[in-house]
Amino acid sequence: MVVIDLTRVLAGPFCTMILADLGARVIKVETPGAGDDSRGFPPTVGGRSAYFMSLNRGKESIALDLRAAGDSHLFEALLGAGDVLVENFRPGVLERLGFGWGRLRTDFPRLIYLAASGFGHSGPYAERPAYDMVVQGMGGIMSVTGQPDGPPTRVGTSIGDLTAGLYAAVAIGAALHHRNATGGGMMIDVAMLDCQVAILENAIARYCATGEVPQPLGARHPSIAPFAPFATADGHVIIACGNQALFERLAVTLDRPQLATDARYADNAARSRHAAELARDIEAITRTRPTPHWLAALHAAGIPCSPINNVAQVLADPQVAARNMVVGIDDPGLGWLKVAGNPIKMSAFADPARRGPAPALDEQRALIIAELRETGALE
Amino acid sequence: MVVIDLTRVLAGPFCTMILADLGARVIKVETPGAGDDSRGFPPTVGGRSAYFMSLNRGKESIALDLRAAGDSHLFEALLGAGDVLVENFRPGVLERLGFGWGRLRTDFPRLIYLAASGFGHSGPYAERPAYDMVVQGMGGIMSVTGQPDGPPTRVGTSIGDLTAGLYAAVAIGAALHHRNATGGGMMIDVAMLDCQVAILENAIARYCATGEVPQPLGARHPSIAPFAPFATADGHVIIACGNQALFERLAVTLDRPQLATDARYADNAARSRHAAELARDIEAITRTRPTPHWLAALHAAGIPCSPINNVAQVLADPQVAARNMVVGIDDPGLGWLKVAGNPIKMSAFADPARRGPAPALDEQRALIIAELRETGALE
Repeated sequence: MVVIDLTRVLAGPFCTMILADLGARVIKVETPGAGDDSRGFPPTVGGRSAYFMSLNRGKESIALDLRAAGDSHLFEALLGAGDVLVENFRPGVLERLGFGWGRLRTDFPRLIYLAASGFGHSGPYAERPAYDMVVQGMGGIMSVTGQPDGPPTRVGTSIGDLTAGLYAAVAIGAALHHRNATGGGMMIDVAMLDCQVAILENAIARYCATGEVPQPLGARHPSIAPFAPFATADGHVIIACGNQALFERLAVTLDRPQLATDARYADNAARSRHAAELARDIEAITRTRPTPHWLAALHAAGIPCSPINNVAQVLADPQVAARNMVVGIDDPGLGWLKVAGNPIKMSAFADPARRGPAPALDEQRALIIAELRETGALE
Repeated sequence: MVVIDLTRVLAGPFCTMILADLGARVIKVETPGAGDDSRGFPPTVGGRSAYFMSLNRGKESIALDLRAAGDSHLFEALLGAGDVLVENFRPGVLERLGFGWGRLRTDFPRLIYLAASGFGHSGPYAERPAYDMVVQGMGGIMSVTGQPDGPPTRVGTSIGDLTAGLYAAVAIGAALHHRNATGGGMMIDVAMLDCQVAILENAIARYCATGEVPQPLGARHPSIAPFAPFATADGHVIIACGNQALFERLAVTLDRPQLATDARYADNAARSRHAAELARDIEAITRTRPTPHWLAALHAAGIPCSPINNVAQVLADPQVAARNMVVGIDDPGLGWLKVAGNPIKMSAFADPARRGPAPALDEQRALIIAELRETGALE
């Protein structure tokens, strides 16, 4: 599978990174001169952007000026040889470069064309610029994230971009399946804002069922208690008692069996009503020992629990290592860079712990042109 | 495409909902008696769970006790007729029911078997129970979400489940593409924890490049200013000045041209160093008028901006409506329920504003059995 990749920065490159991790050949078509803007994003390692490298590992690069006749002709040959075209320009940009869907569908009837954008190719906001923060604010996720009555809080990763990249990858798989059956390509229009609405998911049904507008709840569960992080001597431990038996076991594990017989905590409904008192009672105990002590005791009792790991701790976690979720890029001249692995583990394919480096701008130009000539796609 | 769906609650049902929205036939196989646990989740509309209905619209249901010989036989016939099996039991459960991958790969060589779980089918934590809150804590996203030095903050939707559902849908598309080429099925193992690591994404590369552990930053951007929500007379407005020209335009739009000539704000690096002072200077102005005033002025100036919409405001947004991102389920007996639409807009398919209702437990039993008999899959 060959992906012709016009994407820049995050949403689009994240999509094509997933495709590359799954075995697709991704040919990144960049602007001559600077290339993908994110090549300049800090921090750098040996003068190259770690941000760019993590998102573009295993891709190839060719620099083309689509406004120049020769390069435009070369791009046409690439489209003829490709299965999928992905771009995340603002709506209208690709059309003005002479490659709108009206033309693509005629000249390349098998091509799957995915356009990712902030607001999509239709509707009153189609032409507006978007950033992750803009769609997080507009799409509702910020309204349910943070502390009650606290300041605005965004999700700490660029979930607006990442979710759009994921939906785009889902869409491409579905379109390939359709093409395998029918022979025909299609255009797919994925908007960051739409994807934010999609991950609100049942919050919409809950609001429509009750009329209550969902609010931020810090880190606790809206209707289960105890089901939250609790302070320990050196941090926090998340304790998630999803049923009555787990709560009773928790009381024993904390060496406070009286919690389980306290009328205020008799069942989940009572505990939810007294969630603040229950948290104080639990923290009076958990604060006396450090997090590792409580994790060991809770695991031994079979109570769902976890630490709040920072990025360094995530990378050191034995499960994360066992699942090969931190892989290495062996960059020529720079050495080893760690990046997130591929969470799709398939029995039919290996899951290499070493991924190809990100390309230098225009690095595969000669190779790509030679291949296009060899197959007759370019004369 | 026929999906045999053993999933319960959220991660699995979200995956098969995406497949159903894309046109797959999803046959939900539920436990006799209560069915999917989430059929009991509040709030209810007319005695039925709005949570369940939103996630299971357009699916069919059959209740099977896989430990009973007759039902197990029927399930085998379903697997023979299906393309994909999806389950989100704890590792080992399906094997103990007699349908482990060792058998499935032999008896159903074309079957794509996707197992979604908290920690995956390998590694030291494989058998542990997981909830969304547990993997949000363990996977690092909570460590970068929230206010600096503030209390622990989770992402306000169940991003641990939803991300796993999305990766599972990506994986199924890739496996179908592989099967179209080779004829062979495969097992896919998707873990919620792995998916949390994957959406940390370039935070891993940034940490490895600098050794600095990423921290929560509230709602501001780590290295661009102004790029955050700012208080207005009645709420907040997000202003995202991604370059110098936008900042200069902002100074004019706020009627404070001196901001653009202030040495502290001369370029993005200077503004980032003085981000707190800059926020105070901007809010001194933005607090004087309500959010709609500033949105109109900023849009007119072409400056990326947005409100922080709550769920009710998201549903009322004209772009969300124009993109068909709130669709209706016309439930027999209950009437109309609004749910999130499908963010994958494909030129080859319609995007109906009306989706099929969620099934009652065992609702399609007679239909499914009659079809299996008709095709000879069941004698």
